[in-house]
Amino acid sequence: MVSRRNFLKKSALSLAALGTPLARSLKGTNNLFPSESTSIGIAGWTFRFVDNEDAAKMMQRLNVKEVTLKDFQLPLDSSQEEIDQTLQMFSEAGVSVYGVGVIYMETKDEVDQAFEYAEKADVPIIVGVPTYELIPYSEKKVKEYDIKLAIHNHGPEDDLYPSPGDVYEKVKDLDPRMGLCFDIGHGERAGTIAAEGFNQYHDRIFDMHIKDVTEASKDGQSVAVGRGIIDFESFIQALAEKNYTGYYSLEYEDNMREPLAGIAESIGYFRGVFSTI
Amino acid sequence: MVSRRNFLKKSALSLAALGTPLARSLKGTNNLFPSESTSIGIAGWTFRFVDNEDAAKMMQRLNVKEVTLKDFQLPLDSSQEEIDQTLQMFSEAGVSVYGVGVIYMETKDEVDQAFEYAEKADVPIIVGVPTYELIPYSEKKVKEYDIKLAIHNHGPEDDLYPSPGDVYEKVKDLDPRMGLCFDIGHGERAGTIAAEGFNQYHDRIFDMHIKDVTEASKDGQSVAVGRGIIDFESFIQALAEKNYTGYYSLEYEDNMREPLAGIAESIGYFRGVFSTI
Repeated sequence: MVSRRNFLKKSALSLAALGTPLARSLKGTNNLFPSESTSIGIAGWTFRFVDNEDAAKMMQRLNVKEVTLKDFQLPLDSSQEEIDQTLQMFSEAGVSVYGVGVIYMETKDEVDQAFEYAEKADVPIIVGVPTYELIPYSEKKVKEYDIKLAIHNHGPEDDLYPSPGDVYEKVKDLDPRMGLCFDIGHGERAGTIAAEGFNQYHDRIFDMHIKDVTEASKDGQSVAVGRGIIDFESFIQALAEKNYTGYYSLEYEDNMREPLAGIAESIGYFRGVFSTI
Repeated sequence: MVSRRNFLKKSALSLAALGTPLARSLKGTNNLFPSESTSIGIAGWTFRFVDNEDAAKMMQRLNVKEVTLKDFQLPLDSSQEEIDQTLQMFSEAGVSVYGVGVIYMETKDEVDQAFEYAEKADVPIIVGVPTYELIPYSEKKVKEYDIKLAIHNHGPEDDLYPSPGDVYEKVKDLDPRMGLCFDIGHGERAGTIAAEGFNQYHDRIFDMHIKDVTEASKDGQSVAVGRGIIDFESFIQALAEKNYTGYYSLEYEDNMREPLAGIAESIGYFRGVFSTI
């Protein structure tokens, strides 16, 4: 078991070091399909009503290689063996688990549990939401475990982190492994245009939730990529210009009980725009 | 019945006159989703293993508004009533039938049948493959019915029309309603780059089959749009530059027994590229 875990750890580190293929020239990468992914992953929440085996099959079919896992896919109190089984199943489908979350943390015990869990899962990133009071304790854990904490912005209704700027203000002077999971849909709903948010906060962005929304306001609904108001051309252009090497994952939330078509349409749209940059 | 047929006829004519939304500025059209389609339709062959009701549902789900019907969807010897029922069913799903085919025509009787059928279906276009000998007779029927004939190129194995240029040579001096259904996948397989073929033959292109292929050779396999070697950016750029107002439809041929995900991915990719032009 140890040797496989070490291998996984090494793979995760290599991925983190190399970053995503955005660092390469993007022009004409569709010539490389399907041997190389354009590197968009999928955020676990997308699979709210899909079991892990079907999720892995969907990703394999769409040539998506990276995923984050939510607690309903991998419970926070899972044993090492349970975690290994789940990672192994995804790995056999060619899918690497690069993060866990979103994990809400309201007590020190919950912070402890999140880092223990991420350590067992060998992931470089926790997507999480600590209370303000727990930020210093979370930073201590980030240093202790050498696992990044990417705090998630959740739109106008969120008491703690409505916009990516609200996260950035809290982390910008902390350990460089304290940063953002920039949710571009919730960002637009809170008044932050995707490309502009990326350009402002990119030095602390470790992960992103890619989606589209029907309106740039509280009432905006999450829809398939390309069906809403987000300007993906300027957003992907911004990633390329900054040579972004972090992660980013589709979070599809529209037809969640039968998500395959919406996921496929979203991934297709994103890659289509991507191919022109 | 007559009044509904007249209504359908009028709609078909209006569509043909207005052309597709490519005539409008494309920049930022994704802002108009989902109230306006970016106008890619679906070619009936895509639904080889899908019944008409499910096909209509898939199109509705993907906000696709136009379709051509193949004979397994609407048999060539259908009665007027059967044809009306099928058109009505698609119409209720918001889908307009703009063409029939591909119809192979090896005898005068088959040409007669094709035009009778297209007339009953009130479509402005037949996608067809007449033998060389039947081209003059087909042209006579085109004039008689005022229905366009779009001859389909079928790649290197095709004895009659391997490349779009082979069609063009046969029709370029005939009635202006004699033209091409430019299949960009079979075109690439026969050595014609999509954008270049479009630019060369656009004055006779009435319809197109949109797909991707793994190789620009006889061995090229049809795959989801974005997964093969076709340069969609230059192709869609060419359509925009020529202000193309004809039809074009996805022909998805990879995972035909469960096509929804591949159709969705293809439509998404096409629209993604489209949104950047």
